[in-house]
Amino acid sequence: MPQYDQYTGFQVKSPETWTEFHKNEFDVKPFGDYDVEIKIEACGVCSSDVHTVTGGWGDQHFPLAVGHEIVGKALRVGPKVTLIKAGQRVGVGAQSWSCLECRQCKNDNETYCAKQMDTFGAVWPETGIVTQGGYSSHVRTHEHWVFPIPDAIPSELAAPMMCAGITMYSPLVRNGAGPGKKVAIVGLGGLGHFGVLFAKALGAETWVISRTHSKEEDAKKMGADGFLATADKGWNEPHKLTFDLIVSTANAFGEEFDLSAYLSILDIHGKWISVGLPENETLQIKPQDLISNGVLIGSSHLGSRREMLEMLKLSADKGIKSWVETVPISAENLGKTMQRLQKNDVRYRFTMVDYDKQFGA
Amino acid sequence: MPQYDQYTGFQVKSPETWTEFHKNEFDVKPFGDYDVEIKIEACGVCSSDVHTVTGGWGDQHFPLAVGHEIVGKALRVGPKVTLIKAGQRVGVGAQSWSCLECRQCKNDNETYCAKQMDTFGAVWPETGIVTQGGYSSHVRTHEHWVFPIPDAIPSELAAPMMCAGITMYSPLVRNGAGPGKKVAIVGLGGLGHFGVLFAKALGAETWVISRTHSKEEDAKKMGADGFLATADKGWNEPHKLTFDLIVSTANAFGEEFDLSAYLSILDIHGKWISVGLPENETLQIKPQDLISNGVLIGSSHLGSRREMLEMLKLSADKGIKSWVETVPISAENLGKTMQRLQKNDVRYRFTMVDYDKQFGA
Repeated sequence: MPQYDQYTGFQVKSPETWTEFHKNEFDVKPFGDYDVEIKIEACGVCSSDVHTVTGGWGDQHFPLAVGHEIVGKALRVGPKVTLIKAGQRVGVGAQSWSCLECRQCKNDNETYCAKQMDTFGAVWPETGIVTQGGYSSHVRTHEHWVFPIPDAIPSELAAPMMCAGITMYSPLVRNGAGPGKKVAIVGLGGLGHFGVLFAKALGAETWVISRTHSKEEDAKKMGADGFLATADKGWNEPHKLTFDLIVSTANAFGEEFDLSAYLSILDIHGKWISVGLPENETLQIKPQDLISNGVLIGSSHLGSRREMLEMLKLSADKGIKSWVETVPISAENLGKTMQRLQKNDVRYRFTMVDYDKQFGA
Repeated sequence: MPQYDQYTGFQVKSPETWTEFHKNEFDVKPFGDYDVEIKIEACGVCSSDVHTVTGGWGDQHFPLAVGHEIVGKALRVGPKVTLIKAGQRVGVGAQSWSCLECRQCKNDNETYCAKQMDTFGAVWPETGIVTQGGYSSHVRTHEHWVFPIPDAIPSELAAPMMCAGITMYSPLVRNGAGPGKKVAIVGLGGLGHFGVLFAKALGAETWVISRTHSKEEDAKKMGADGFLATADKGWNEPHKLTFDLIVSTANAFGEEFDLSAYLSILDIHGKWISVGLPENETLQIKPQDLISNGVLIGSSHLGSRREMLEMLKLSADKGIKSWVETVPISAENLGKTMQRLQKNDVRYRFTMVDYDKQFGA
């Protein structure tokens, strides 16, 4: 049996015991020429973590440490690394590898590479080792997916940008959010709050669409220009044909979800971009809803390295502050935090911190 | 009771007797300042005619003369008409009115105007008169929806361009079909054959996707660069992530319709534009199909006046020839032709001709 390096992290054993985290040691893939070894300082808590540990997104490789909104310090870099220097504060998001050679990779679409690998739960082909996430002492990642964090952004605020932030930033810039454009963000949660912050920073007129008015005050504090509550009868009527872009974080498309009403507020050829990935649900679209204003429905998956660096620069330049509740990392706190997230009991993102107390300085 | 002018046309009495056409006289709205009066020479037969007379698209105002791919001669023009001269050969398509004042109308999106009216079956608000279509002696239409036909295009070939042609031309140009782009047309019928002719004329690499290989030879004659038959197992596998645009004329999204397979051949952020409007069917979309390559799904409705004129110029300049079977207009022939169209028994479009024999010279 080959001997591998080991890290320590908080793992879940199975979906049946998804609220129980266990501090284990686990094998790490060999340190590659392009790898960066990072001592983790903070990690945001993403709904993907919950979908994964509960089994909602299908079979996973357990035991597993989730967490893919990582910020920490680069301890050492491989001999061919040019993008990162040892000692830098850096981030790692949900993706940790792609081929970098295909047409997608060469066109800033590495998040759509057929060979992409996730930060946690992916099997490294050469060793069979399963990648482990950010509720761990360290992470070892190819430099392309390691991003220098500007000094202006504290680690606990930068962490959730690594997945939630880029998930919103990319569809906004790819679909023209900026001055003269009117953008709506559906759902004001961890994702949605970044949608508001970034759409506003990019110069777009920014609205929030939520079920009720309970988060209206927060939305305004984030900079939203307008707020619509779908519980208000006829909420869409005065706004028909006026929006250029809707980025939706809704991750359920049940029968009460009236897609037609949302699409009606889009101008001709406006776009509905969904970034919430539901569990086993099918989006039901009436062709008439598409044809009446020629709208387009799409989805978006994370964002490129180039966009990640742009997002961080924009955030530093404009002083964008993630709304974060910090939680000291521990087995108990991870269990509680996951359960709170499942109930959307957070405004608007958790970041696990105090790694030194669990993993040493 | 006010006295209105009257035209003669072939009308259907009700969906129950949709194969029976009756030569009737009917009232015409008063001749307006911007109207053009056209003596009809030819009219293409569109699936919309069948959907309408069979009641498939819901309640209609019967008795009704359908037909909205009209070519004829402008007999006279209203005092404020500037776009058309009496004596010109002109066409009229599926739309005959919009406000021309709203943001949509002012941005070449008059086909999405909330006040749009159809060439047949629309109720004129001031008189309650229902517009009648092109299986008639004449038609009276606002100049904005009357298009000069270039001399190079015979009437029977120009007629089907007025609806089927523009329905394909608009989504192609709006979504960048041209040199360096790879375009697929789904379904080789009346719509699809124009998709091939125009995509090719615009300079795109053009493929046809059909159920079987039965129309492959025709597709190649139209200029198609490639042909895929979905009955071939794994038809999509070698083509994944290679197309920029799919324009689909499929008007059924039943369970056997594997949308996932089609979407898989689109490159990142490629577009699926549907121009077939099914009767009462819902498009079922798995979010995973959208997210894996970030594709967009949309629809398109006719095309603007500007695009109509561009399409006619392109067709004249490049010698594009619609594939048409001409049928002398008569009550009996209209019944037979509608039934043949319902069975897709045409390659690739019917045009009703010989109007003089029914309506005089």
